[in-house]
Amino acid sequence: MEPVRDTTHEIHFGEVAMAVLNQRLDQKHYSKVFVLVDENTNIHCLPHFKTLCQCPFDEIISIKAGEVHKTIDTCTQVWRQLSQIGGDRKSLLINLGGGVVTDLGGFVAATFKRGIDFINVPTTLLAMVDASVGGKTGVDLGSLKNQVGVIAQPEIVLIFPEFLQTLEQRQLKSGFAEMLKHGLIMDQNYWNHLCTSPDNSYQQHNIQASIKIKGEIVAQDPTEKSIRKKLNFGHTLGHAIESYFLEATDRDVLLHGEAIAIGMVLESYLSHKLTGLSKIELDEIKRNFSIHFEPVKFSRREIETILELLKHDKKNEHGNINFVLLSSIGNAVIDIKVSPEFLKESFLYYMER
Amino acid sequence: MEPVRDTTHEIHFGEVAMAVLNQRLDQKHYSKVFVLVDENTNIHCLPHFKTLCQCPFDEIISIKAGEVHKTIDTCTQVWRQLSQIGGDRKSLLINLGGGVVTDLGGFVAATFKRGIDFINVPTTLLAMVDASVGGKTGVDLGSLKNQVGVIAQPEIVLIFPEFLQTLEQRQLKSGFAEMLKHGLIMDQNYWNHLCTSPDNSYQQHNIQASIKIKGEIVAQDPTEKSIRKKLNFGHTLGHAIESYFLEATDRDVLLHGEAIAIGMVLESYLSHKLTGLSKIELDEIKRNFSIHFEPVKFSRREIETILELLKHDKKNEHGNINFVLLSSIGNAVIDIKVSPEFLKESFLYYMER
Repeated sequence: MEPVRDTTHEIHFGEVAMAVLNQRLDQKHYSKVFVLVDENTNIHCLPHFKTLCQCPFDEIISIKAGEVHKTIDTCTQVWRQLSQIGGDRKSLLINLGGGVVTDLGGFVAATFKRGIDFINVPTTLLAMVDASVGGKTGVDLGSLKNQVGVIAQPEIVLIFPEFLQTLEQRQLKSGFAEMLKHGLIMDQNYWNHLCTSPDNSYQQHNIQASIKIKGEIVAQDPTEKSIRKKLNFGHTLGHAIESYFLEATDRDVLLHGEAIAIGMVLESYLSHKLTGLSKIELDEIKRNFSIHFEPVKFSRREIETILELLKHDKKNEHGNINFVLLSSIGNAVIDIKVSPEFLKESFLYYMER
Repeated sequence: MEPVRDTTHEIHFGEVAMAVLNQRLDQKHYSKVFVLVDENTNIHCLPHFKTLCQCPFDEIISIKAGEVHKTIDTCTQVWRQLSQIGGDRKSLLINLGGGVVTDLGGFVAATFKRGIDFINVPTTLLAMVDASVGGKTGVDLGSLKNQVGVIAQPEIVLIFPEFLQTLEQRQLKSGFAEMLKHGLIMDQNYWNHLCTSPDNSYQQHNIQASIKIKGEIVAQDPTEKSIRKKLNFGHTLGHAIESYFLEATDRDVLLHGEAIAIGMVLESYLSHKLTGLSKIELDEIKRNFSIHFEPVKFSRREIETILELLKHDKKNEHGNINFVLLSSIGNAVIDIKVSPEFLKESFLYYMER
């Protein structure tokens, strides 16, 4: 299978990935090889991963599972463990897990002794199509997502689609939301294809198509000065919703993809109001998301709290909230400022049945 | 005054520094300008700095003073404050202080929302001649120095020699140790000049000479693959000694320069044993350091604990401890492995009167 390349690192699939990994471990003469897992991938993915690799690992470092543990405290635990078990600048960290493990593990590696090599082995659909490409690493600060991090590229990204069999349907849908986003912002045909054959959505060729879209965007603008911002479609409101659910004691946690699925419907409404998205396409977007994602009710007070959280969005500059919106399905426009009244309206549109 | 340039950022002195700062603030249209100080620079340096700048600052962030607070916990406090007071990606952080403030502040800025601009205004001699150049940022992990960090360059470095008047003699000496190191590893004439006219050592032309030596080395090898390692002379044992004093409840804290002054005598002994430094030069080095730095006694147990701490040195690779040693005054050689017996002997030589 041909590797997908972005500017700085390679992404390989299946058997080729296995061969590339073993070759790389041979070539690089790492002093030690550590694997970072969470409670889930420790049980469900590590045994299979061990059989794929010819190289024995020096130590497995396990963290608690879930976004709520994507914190500086967890980083400190991993940094300390790396120190204690003799990690040095020539060590390698392999991140085996979903987005929490690859985001946090990438940040830990990029900052341990001012930077060691790391390899990402995403085990969720979300991590495969999103976190695996682009080099964003980081952790949350309280309920504020990814407030602390760096841009750092993994040496290689290895994708083994068989890990998807370990996931629940809800986890798969969470990744599917990002794939739908790739269609919405860049490729109407891909959106149509995903919407009309959703049962096959998790197949390797779709994963590759999504990585290709993201990879091409990132390659053009690695530091998010311009076109890369398009990938934030649905994320401005989506992140605020995700943060709110993380904090709220009376709410179950929303998965990342579930939150940005809502964010995409809300921001499609803004697109209809501000950047020319037609009512027909707006309704099509809402309808397709409602097939895959359970609708969520928001109270007036909740909407206000969520809009308050927007102020901490990383993409804000000079106090203005910047949105990525759609002009049509397959076409995104960046740096659109939105007035508060439309934001509230978008929630009402989302909740209309 | 001509600016000193290394690969990526500029260093300016005095009145020119002031003009450059004000010009930069004008040009860059930062959304907010924050100043990081510690308890000491808040009182002794901030008022003067404010009079130098035409631009009002949006917020002053103050941390506790001292190496013992150069921790991830302090970073978390600063990250949270930056979030709370509305820091965004277009904000600027000005680090006004010694090495703790510039190292920690640089790391906080390089990782806040995946990186914001920062400017260093070193207020100690040590920070002026060492921390201000080269882009090493980071914090300690327990007693292990600089275990977590990144290489990140400040936009500019501004040096106002008048801040040295706020320092005690002991603080000045701590910076002087790094200046002596610059002579020892690169320039015998500079070493002789510093040793024969120590009263004038803190003058601007000497500060510039030291920055020039460090800047030239860093420019050739920013990521410390080869020649930059020379700057670690005295630091392998010096850092272990500094770590030990940080942890030991029955010992006063040693300043960084005081610890590496001891490290330089110890490593000069190793240089005599292994890389051809003459006995005459070895004794000259020990004599000159003893003029400026109070001798320290180490018990056998303390020496063992310090040698144990060496294992965590960042410069270790594959479990080997690498030293930078001297072949003569003004000439350093890198990547020398040293057997444990010489390490103990070096302490005995240092303590001989």
